[in-house]
Amino acid sequence: MKRERIHLADGRELVYYDHDGAPPRAAEDSRDLPARPAGSELRYDPFLASWVMVAANRQERTYLPPADDCPLCPSRDGKVTEVPASDYGVVVLENRFPALSGESRSTASLTASPTHAYRPGAGRCEVICYSPRHDASLVDLTPSEIALVLAAWTDRTEELSRIEAVEQVFCFENRGVEVGVTLQHPHGQIYAYPFVTPRTSRALASVTDYVRRTGRNLYDDVLAAEREDGARVVVENRSWTAFVPYAARWPYETHLYPRRRVADLTCLDDDARADFPGIYLDLLRRFDALFGGRTPYMSGWHQAPVREGREHLALHLETFTVRRSADKLKYLASSESGMDAFANDIVPESAAARLRELAS
Amino acid sequence: MKRERIHLADGRELVYYDHDGAPPRAAEDSRDLPARPAGSELRYDPFLASWVMVAANRQERTYLPPADDCPLCPSRDGKVTEVPASDYGVVVLENRFPALSGESRSTASLTASPTHAYRPGAGRCEVICYSPRHDASLVDLTPSEIALVLAAWTDRTEELSRIEAVEQVFCFENRGVEVGVTLQHPHGQIYAYPFVTPRTSRALASVTDYVRRTGRNLYDDVLAAEREDGARVVVENRSWTAFVPYAARWPYETHLYPRRRVADLTCLDDDARADFPGIYLDLLRRFDALFGGRTPYMSGWHQAPVREGREHLALHLETFTVRRSADKLKYLASSESGMDAFANDIVPESAAARLRELAS
Repeated sequence: MKRERIHLADGRELVYYDHDGAPPRAAEDSRDLPARPAGSELRYDPFLASWVMVAANRQERTYLPPADDCPLCPSRDGKVTEVPASDYGVVVLENRFPALSGESRSTASLTASPTHAYRPGAGRCEVICYSPRHDASLVDLTPSEIALVLAAWTDRTEELSRIEAVEQVFCFENRGVEVGVTLQHPHGQIYAYPFVTPRTSRALASVTDYVRRTGRNLYDDVLAAEREDGARVVVENRSWTAFVPYAARWPYETHLYPRRRVADLTCLDDDARADFPGIYLDLLRRFDALFGGRTPYMSGWHQAPVREGREHLALHLETFTVRRSADKLKYLASSESGMDAFANDIVPESAAARLRELAS
Repeated sequence: MKRERIHLADGRELVYYDHDGAPPRAAEDSRDLPARPAGSELRYDPFLASWVMVAANRQERTYLPPADDCPLCPSRDGKVTEVPASDYGVVVLENRFPALSGESRSTASLTASPTHAYRPGAGRCEVICYSPRHDASLVDLTPSEIALVLAAWTDRTEELSRIEAVEQVFCFENRGVEVGVTLQHPHGQIYAYPFVTPRTSRALASVTDYVRRTGRNLYDDVLAAEREDGARVVVENRSWTAFVPYAARWPYETHLYPRRRVADLTCLDDDARADFPGIYLDLLRRFDALFGGRTPYMSGWHQAPVREGREHLALHLETFTVRRSADKLKYLASSESGMDAFANDIVPESAAARLRELAS
């Protein structure tokens, strides 16, 4: 894998990831871009003990542009996009409308009053384009192209983890207007949070409690129990197992774990790397086969934070759809959005059986 | 307020709430209804330490029927609906497609394996119809009609809190297809959960920690700080204050607190009761004025659980919209749905200023 770094006209960083032997991508960004927007702010919710990112700049972000005006396509025919090169393999660039400011130094919490704490929105938001082909989707890529995406996710995790302010790196994809996508080009995002996310904090508390009570690792025990039971396993290969969790929150939801527990993407061994493209493509094809066409989904790598919980937390990829039938979506209505109490209409074993049947 | 109770043809309970002097509502349910669906199941997520409601019956629930086939309108012209009477004030009935089973006894957690715990879905789901008028919305009701709705919420909280299995009562409304509403008739819902919800558990942990550290109540201090600052206050009256929270998660979000802290609706005094309809109608009108027309919203009463935290937690009503501009919605995409890390595009002080301007 080769890597080439440039800066866009407004100073944002862009990194090309290519297979060895690809041509150089050194074209410059000739655009006259406005200055980068003011940074975001983090505000502390004292009841939920968690930070909220307040980013007024995002209200004006690009919203579903036509295909011939796509900012993530390569620059061609005199039209300069966010990617100056005329072609690319995988490319990562800082988000023009970030929820986190790009500030790399961490700042102590500032307090407006004893109940109102805030700090500048350090951390970083990146966009990762999976392919130069506007109409492709991750599921259309070849295993070799997926391997390059995995290499880029891994490299971003390593590089972003070295930024002083960054506490956790989240590589994810939202696909489909049903989950709020504002650009159709095949892409994902990477958030380098300046805090440990609420979801991961809770998992860490549970896993720490479990090891204290049992001496064992909760992730290891869950994966072993799922493999032994089999009722919720969707697909496995030499290095990975995908199953529907016993207490799934979403109509169709899979968790994909490497057989050997690791803290984050940088710790995967060569076998796990080699075996990932095939099983993830298989899984995404099953999601698409559920309802015919492109199933809207969210998919994200749960990684251990940079500085804590690395001996207990387990890297895994959670993929789920908000579609509960061909013409109906699952909404996060008041019980979910107001009380975090989830109701799921699809029994997890049925979801797993359905996904197992849909082998391509 | 008078109350009249009947049972529907399949055994579900229905309660009419009327102002004194209304005619009797004793009509019987003459329908030949199928047996009630199998109960739901609760499954425990060991990582998030919370219960998920698995309710396969809900997949077949009634979905956006035409107005002349509305199940929540009164029964008229020979058409028998879910409400046998030909008119009503407010009516509450058990949900035909419940996420919680209706089972009233609590059951200890059953364990499928050390990592896989479940129990039958005790607790209850109710529908509350605010008005017999199909095309009305809560915001169209008179203060006297809203007072009857408040009386019904209060009575339901009292009655459901007496059920052995019930740990917390949540009265809420989802309005608009944008937040997943499947019936257009003006109605809300009431979930009587057989567990303390994750949201409330976290608030209770924070408030308990705050009292230990400061000797004071976090809700009292936040409300006092908001009233003193004023920048996020939207509207107040003698008994209530509505403000946008400092770390708001939603584009437009208000929290409405009674001046005197109480644990739940049953503890409100007469002044607070008398002053509620005016300020809630005012607030809902401001939400509708934001974008013209009916703004989709979720609104729910946060109440202390039945058996814990009652001396620390504060009854309040959280109302928010998923609409961030006239033509755009806020989606809970991967950062929110995957990591519980919220980004908000609208600065809370701007949201409050906008809502303040929109007085009707």
